[in-house]
Amino acid sequence: MKSFRVAILGCGTVGGGVARILLDLGKQIAQRSEANIEIAKIADIFPARSAQRHGIPRELFCGTADELTKEESNKFIQEIIADPTIDLVVETIGGTSQFLLDIMLNVLKAKKHLVTANKAMLAHHGDEIFAAAEANGVSVGFEASVCGAIPIIKAVRECFTGDKINSVCGIMNGTSNYILSKMKAEGLSFADALALAQKHGYAEADPSLDINGGDAGHKLAILCRLAFGLAIKFEDLSVTGIENITKEDHDFASEMDATIKLICYAKNDGDKVYACVHPMIVRNENLLSDINGATNAVLLQNEYSTEHVLIGKGAGSLETGSAIVGDIVFISKYAECISNKQNIANVKLADVDDMEFPYMAIFGTNNTPGITGAITTAIGAQNINIDTVGHNYHTNGATTFTVTTMPCKLSQLKAAIAQIKAERADILVGTPKILPVLY
Amino acid sequence: MKSFRVAILGCGTVGGGVARILLDLGKQIAQRSEANIEIAKIADIFPARSAQRHGIPRELFCGTADELTKEESNKFIQEIIADPTIDLVVETIGGTSQFLLDIMLNVLKAKKHLVTANKAMLAHHGDEIFAAAEANGVSVGFEASVCGAIPIIKAVRECFTGDKINSVCGIMNGTSNYILSKMKAEGLSFADALALAQKHGYAEADPSLDINGGDAGHKLAILCRLAFGLAIKFEDLSVTGIENITKEDHDFASEMDATIKLICYAKNDGDKVYACVHPMIVRNENLLSDINGATNAVLLQNEYSTEHVLIGKGAGSLETGSAIVGDIVFISKYAECISNKQNIANVKLADVDDMEFPYMAIFGTNNTPGITGAITTAIGAQNINIDTVGHNYHTNGATTFTVTTMPCKLSQLKAAIAQIKAERADILVGTPKILPVLY
Repeated sequence: MKSFRVAILGCGTVGGGVARILLDLGKQIAQRSEANIEIAKIADIFPARSAQRHGIPRELFCGTADELTKEESNKFIQEIIADPTIDLVVETIGGTSQFLLDIMLNVLKAKKHLVTANKAMLAHHGDEIFAAAEANGVSVGFEASVCGAIPIIKAVRECFTGDKINSVCGIMNGTSNYILSKMKAEGLSFADALALAQKHGYAEADPSLDINGGDAGHKLAILCRLAFGLAIKFEDLSVTGIENITKEDHDFASEMDATIKLICYAKNDGDKVYACVHPMIVRNENLLSDINGATNAVLLQNEYSTEHVLIGKGAGSLETGSAIVGDIVFISKYAECISNKQNIANVKLADVDDMEFPYMAIFGTNNTPGITGAITTAIGAQNINIDTVGHNYHTNGATTFTVTTMPCKLSQLKAAIAQIKAERADILVGTPKILPVLY
Repeated sequence: MKSFRVAILGCGTVGGGVARILLDLGKQIAQRSEANIEIAKIADIFPARSAQRHGIPRELFCGTADELTKEESNKFIQEIIADPTIDLVVETIGGTSQFLLDIMLNVLKAKKHLVTANKAMLAHHGDEIFAAAEANGVSVGFEASVCGAIPIIKAVRECFTGDKINSVCGIMNGTSNYILSKMKAEGLSFADALALAQKHGYAEADPSLDINGGDAGHKLAILCRLAFGLAIKFEDLSVTGIENITKEDHDFASEMDATIKLICYAKNDGDKVYACVHPMIVRNENLLSDINGATNAVLLQNEYSTEHVLIGKGAGSLETGSAIVGDIVFISKYAECISNKQNIANVKLADVDDMEFPYMAIFGTNNTPGITGAITTAIGAQNINIDTVGHNYHTNGATTFTVTTMPCKLSQLKAAIAQIKAERADILVGTPKILPVLY
């Protein structure tokens, strides 16, 4: 049986999970996959603490000190890269520094396979990383980078190869989903729900990337590349977070039998791909409306096999660790057969302003007569059919007023709002909010 | 780019879907998978009709007549098996005849890969088929055999390799699920719901295998082999269908916020595997309770990545066809690396009488005083804790009476019923029905 030697860079929550599973399942993997996967070395800045935390033999770690200096740590990483007996390197350090990018590229240049959960790095520097893998004939495994344990990457790469993926739609960030779920279930404000998420360990001390849609955007960018062959620049992706979602927005959603979710959405439309991360009004007949807490879910619409839903845990030490180990096993089994060619298709990112959806526009207005007529007339003037007009909440003399449209382009609705602003700035309080409605 | 030549045996609903997709997606597959997959030959007994039905060029079919004789058809199949330019054979004839088994074994002996949707054949003769594949160094693809388009086979084989599957639980037969869904939603009797399923094309003229649990059992047997390494004889699997489920049973389920579903259940318990196909009372908080109509869903409980749900279409020409094409692409890409070794583990099928579940027992009784006491006393005497006692329906002087237990072994409940039968045969009408309760 061939031996397959793996080094792990970074032994925190995820790296520790990888080591733990490899130690536990070694025999099972050897039996099922005919590969003897060994941990060659683990490089971590706190070897003693990480060994104890995850129950990993201390001798697997580089260095003898309890804490390594940056220089020592770097030296050990360079030794791993130079070690010809190591077949594959797991990167679980995280972040998007040039320092880390260089390490990842050097791993590939040393003709070692790379497995990573680093969605931010792949979203920002996927071009370079995948090109280096292709040039050096080695593989990049990144199942763990999108929706943790859900096997969405392999589903797209290896399962739906006898099909055409028409759209991808999902809840891909557990923290924001936890916050939105709590706001809905317990009527909390955004700030209170965020505080609760932090208290229970569902949100980091700095939760920016989770709540501003950035983390979800990283995952969507990776999926767009894979499902549609879109060479996407992350900066070009339209990303809106949940920071401005209020308790009142949830009430409006509930009134129309819907739930607000942060949705990653991408649709292949011939030679272009519509893609965005945006809070959406998800109708309760859509299964995504019922995905709560830290769970992730992805809904694919395929040309032949039609609708698929995959649901699972989006994060966690062993959950994400198991996805990484799955990648290691796959590469150890199939390395000689895997094509590392990038599949870039002749498609480009479409302008989200052209994206057709039913939309809900939420207007803060003064509480004076004539507002309903002014707003709905302006919307009608843009050739938009109105589906429903929402209830008003009269608080402190102000009114919140919603219009839900039949499918139209975002640009049409924006033009209507611009006209209202131009002609009746006196009736608006704040900036109207636009949320797509997902059936 | 390597060329990969495929022959299709049987061009009905599924085989036609395979040909249609290969013709449509050839270019995309070539680009993404670097394999030029060609249809070498299609053998079907009605070449003209099948060509027209699926829009496939007539010249791809063996023979020139509109209808082939059995001898001609067999001669063409033998020619395909003998053709050294053909790499892979798709079997979409169906059935479990010795004639077809011989064809499948001969395909493998001719060192051609085999892709099939034939769950019945794999459940009954998997041992022989997989042994022949191993002996001849070729692969068997059978994604389409379990839950149509849901990539459950590849998920188990290639994705969750960094994990341990603890249990598999799912709705794997669309026809029976359609019938149960209609019974619940519209209050229909079993007979009326079955007639409706036949009218709308969801059930065959002979629906036996769908309603008696046989088809679901075939799929569960295949999954038990794959997920747990269980060398299972299909005859040993405990299979109960939905023929005896009544409108009243649905009412009892609804009263306890649950839904009756035909469930395929298997659980790994150390050196043994509990497995059965049985109608179960599925609590409405379990996502499977909400899978309606012809949709299939599988819920896996894994050791590390915890809960996964996969939902999709369980049948259909293009749905099942796309799963077969996915297998063809996978084999064409990875043939040289795929291990065809069977993974038989040291586990055996456990006795279902030892299976611990909460159970609901439904008793038909006379309408006389003392029945509740007699039945619950007998159940208590078997050391079973009772969870709830269900409402009674008094019809024609008879009573239906249910007891739902806390988790106990099936054998305990059977012993209680045996005791009631022995001591109070006078109060029972018909045979009590036992349904596991799934949380």
